[in-house]
Amino acid sequence: MSNLVTDIEIAQQAKMKPIREIAAEIGLAENEIECYGPYKAKLSNEAIRRLHNRSNGKLILVTSINPTPAGEGKSTVTIGLGDAIKQLGKKAIIALREPSLGPVMGLKGGACGGGWSQVVPMEDINLHFTGDLHAITSANNALASFIDNHIHQGNELEIDPRKIIWKRAIDLNDRVLRDIVIGLGGEKNGVPREDHFEITAASEMMAIFCLAKDFRDLKERIARTVVAFTVHNEPVTVQDLGVEGALTLLLKDAFKPNLVQTLEHTPAIIHGGPFANIAHGCNSLIATKTALKLADYVITEAGFGADLGAEKFLDIKCRIGELNPSAVVIVATIRALKMHGGVPLKELHKENSEALIQGFANLKKHVETMEQFGLPYIVALNRFTGDHSSEIATFDKLCREQNIPYALTEVWEKGGRGGNELADKMMSLLSENNNNQTFAPLYEVTDSIEQKLTTIATKVYGADGIKLSAKAKKQVQAIEDAGWANVPVCIAKTQYSLSDDRTKIGRPDNFMISIRELKPSVGAGFIVAYAGDMLTMPGLPKRPAAMGMDLDESGKVTGLF
Amino acid sequence: MSNLVTDIEIAQQAKMKPIREIAAEIGLAENEIECYGPYKAKLSNEAIRRLHNRSNGKLILVTSINPTPAGEGKSTVTIGLGDAIKQLGKKAIIALREPSLGPVMGLKGGACGGGWSQVVPMEDINLHFTGDLHAITSANNALASFIDNHIHQGNELEIDPRKIIWKRAIDLNDRVLRDIVIGLGGEKNGVPREDHFEITAASEMMAIFCLAKDFRDLKERIARTVVAFTVHNEPVTVQDLGVEGALTLLLKDAFKPNLVQTLEHTPAIIHGGPFANIAHGCNSLIATKTALKLADYVITEAGFGADLGAEKFLDIKCRIGELNPSAVVIVATIRALKMHGGVPLKELHKENSEALIQGFANLKKHVETMEQFGLPYIVALNRFTGDHSSEIATFDKLCREQNIPYALTEVWEKGGRGGNELADKMMSLLSENNNNQTFAPLYEVTDSIEQKLTTIATKVYGADGIKLSAKAKKQVQAIEDAGWANVPVCIAKTQYSLSDDRTKIGRPDNFMISIRELKPSVGAGFIVAYAGDMLTMPGLPKRPAAMGMDLDESGKVTGLF
Repeated sequence: MSNLVTDIEIAQQAKMKPIREIAAEIGLAENEIECYGPYKAKLSNEAIRRLHNRSNGKLILVTSINPTPAGEGKSTVTIGLGDAIKQLGKKAIIALREPSLGPVMGLKGGACGGGWSQVVPMEDINLHFTGDLHAITSANNALASFIDNHIHQGNELEIDPRKIIWKRAIDLNDRVLRDIVIGLGGEKNGVPREDHFEITAASEMMAIFCLAKDFRDLKERIARTVVAFTVHNEPVTVQDLGVEGALTLLLKDAFKPNLVQTLEHTPAIIHGGPFANIAHGCNSLIATKTALKLADYVITEAGFGADLGAEKFLDIKCRIGELNPSAVVIVATIRALKMHGGVPLKELHKENSEALIQGFANLKKHVETMEQFGLPYIVALNRFTGDHSSEIATFDKLCREQNIPYALTEVWEKGGRGGNELADKMMSLLSENNNNQTFAPLYEVTDSIEQKLTTIATKVYGADGIKLSAKAKKQVQAIEDAGWANVPVCIAKTQYSLSDDRTKIGRPDNFMISIRELKPSVGAGFIVAYAGDMLTMPGLPKRPAAMGMDLDESGKVTGLF
Repeated sequence: MSNLVTDIEIAQQAKMKPIREIAAEIGLAENEIECYGPYKAKLSNEAIRRLHNRSNGKLILVTSINPTPAGEGKSTVTIGLGDAIKQLGKKAIIALREPSLGPVMGLKGGACGGGWSQVVPMEDINLHFTGDLHAITSANNALASFIDNHIHQGNELEIDPRKIIWKRAIDLNDRVLRDIVIGLGGEKNGVPREDHFEITAASEMMAIFCLAKDFRDLKERIARTVVAFTVHNEPVTVQDLGVEGALTLLLKDAFKPNLVQTLEHTPAIIHGGPFANIAHGCNSLIATKTALKLADYVITEAGFGADLGAEKFLDIKCRIGELNPSAVVIVATIRALKMHGGVPLKELHKENSEALIQGFANLKKHVETMEQFGLPYIVALNRFTGDHSSEIATFDKLCREQNIPYALTEVWEKGGRGGNELADKMMSLLSENNNNQTFAPLYEVTDSIEQKLTTIATKVYGADGIKLSAKAKKQVQAIEDAGWANVPVCIAKTQYSLSDDRTKIGRPDNFMISIRELKPSVGAGFIVAYAGDMLTMPGLPKRPAAMGMDLDESGKVTGLF
């Protein structure tokens, strides 16, 4: 699509409405929003309190097949579906995550959709937006500094410097910060120890922020967060350090959801930003809940494929937040399915229905997963201009044979209009399933940690089971002994494969999921399990996206995508 | 003053005007500001461009004696003077630096003034404000990640990992990050090397941000910044890495000055935040220049005593920005002067005119320094309620004997009304010196590095000269060889003493200034010289201020000061 206008050019030419108008359209009074420039606003605490007793709209989750370098356009479809539902005269709000500077400066780009299905102002949203990620990073690192300072100043709590589980965070891709030694240079510089930076999107502070129901819950979660263990192996919490008030204070504005709009002026609430491969992958609970009060249809997205974002959305966020999703959209493209069928990126332009049939198995697995959760779904086949009609016909045949409902979308090219078919079919699905109450998480929190991990590995990933490392086994025991086991599990795993090996595309079988390590996230309320070699701090590619970015004297931005 | 209301209580009870009104009062159109909530705004690029050809108001610098634990109230006097000038019916704007989370969470508190002379909303200004410091931190650390990534990805530029002078930054006090080793854990994690974090307020990115004239200058300064040397000892710049566009882009909103108000609704522009002990200590040039276009009187503050902030304001900022300050206020208190006379903090409540006479020597030195710069001045004696009238009489006598003009201020207690005397005397001083053009920096940039350092050490600090370490001598040579010597010098030195030894209070004599190390800040346009044991990353005290902070369910903040 190199001869078309770029996403940023479309976004820059957009005629945005003042955000006050967008807010007014969804019934928010002028004093219920706090403007950040003319096109961004935060919803005030008063607004959220006022809405509290309203009934909820319907929640639609958008997920996808396992991502490939071909691109799937999940955000684009989410935005386009919102616009299309609005075109039907319905009240729709889109609820997304905030982009991270790591991918923006690195490789993947932002998270504002593309083509004619974008949220705007995309330059602001993709850069610092309203500063939420920076506030979360500050709270995360302030806590780290308080821990090390406590040790340096006499260590009254007897923290064992080898048993600190709270890591520092930065909202960048920076591999050299994965494993570091701090506190060098003599006694004025504190106590030397090994430390680690995670990307903010993977931090427990981000998870706490995204799963807290309200301010009180936010402070309570922060207070009970376990940051380290003493020399006697007793847990040390934030409350022990006496800084839960200050850390909550650092999040006081960030915690207010952000309101922006799509190119077609559909309201979008963008708030919180955990990744789905190394964290729980959904926008904030407070944003989703607020959106459900304000609209009849809330379209939200969970990161990467349904094995990661959707599973965590359903098993973690919906459980903790008592959300009841109504339906799911599973996004696929011909190109990506052909890659799952073994076609390299360079060959994707060639007709290859054989590969499509092969790669379809990846989509099929995610369809089965949604069925296991008891949720009605529609597959969105996100059309690219180079798709061959014979391939579309093959896709149609496969869906008919397997009784998979689908809709073609062309939202990249046409905006909401390109999502008409999907919106229509979604409306039918929702009215058919009007009283659908069959959604349930896949496991009980009272299942053992191994049971929970096994359920996800077998039912969602299609694995034969799990293999715990010796270290992980010890950690399972320790978590159970501490009484922290009865919570959901959050598996960190590659997004590229259903397995924990990124090279196994399509629908792999005969594999086990290796759990290398576990970490109790007591404040967030889940246990993190690290599968395969998944790291919580990404690196930059040889030529970072930043090298193509510029800003001229008039303030015009280029190279952001 | 423990039985009085606290600063935060006064600030919380303030009736702020909408920031749109404040903007309108200084002639800004509604579309020339970008609101960040109802009480904060950024000035748009268009506004700054429109004002460009206007004539300038008069620039008044507020500085002080060397700070002591007794507190001097320099920000408070700056704000009170602005309010007092406004009470005279004149157009006044206050130009301040942005607070850093390091001191806010640590010990010193924020930088919003105190009592009835505060800028508001103080909670927002003291926490993340409009996110400028976070944007600067992001740009700083993105650059660091690009450097390490370049090395990891093949090191085409042949950067010597031992010769990287660009440091990482964080806006917190965190001593364990002063000396670290990064890139550990194997080849996937980059190349191991020693690294260092500075507080953002001490970073070169902050200095560049604060000294750039406009966007073009900002990008040019970033582009020419030297970050490392090759294995052949050749400098490596940001431009060599190709990321000056992306880094400037990260600063696109931060670079717009912030507008807030005082408790008495005087406009205040708060922008940029380098410390004066470990950096150049003044708010941004673009903020000062913009304020000068909008008001007849701009009252600005430089950090710590006149030996640090004022010297750098005059020798670095005024030179680079071609600013012509009209007058100076030197803030002193009876309590602080008594401390300089040897009285410990606990004994300050007792009458002690002898100590006051002793400690007065510190004030006298700063007075002499301002005379050397050719600037008219007034001493502001900032009255505390516990000051003894006999001490005030002694102070009066000393000033008369030595022909030092002074005014009593009670702005903490009375707001602008408490600054009437100071404002009146300032107006007289400015009309007397209406055609004063005698201000000049103390040295020429063409002087040798040693000459420049010696000039500051002898004329401003009162030292007998400077002593360069062996390392510093080599660095002087290297900087001269590279052709980077013809710029101002920025000395990092303790704020507590005129010397480089924090225990030498009052007016020490018979001392040398030890220069331990130098660093060329090619982008900022100065050479940093580190005196004594001054560090660019502060630590936290045993009981950080954070431990006293809280936020209740209604959103009410306590413990911030």
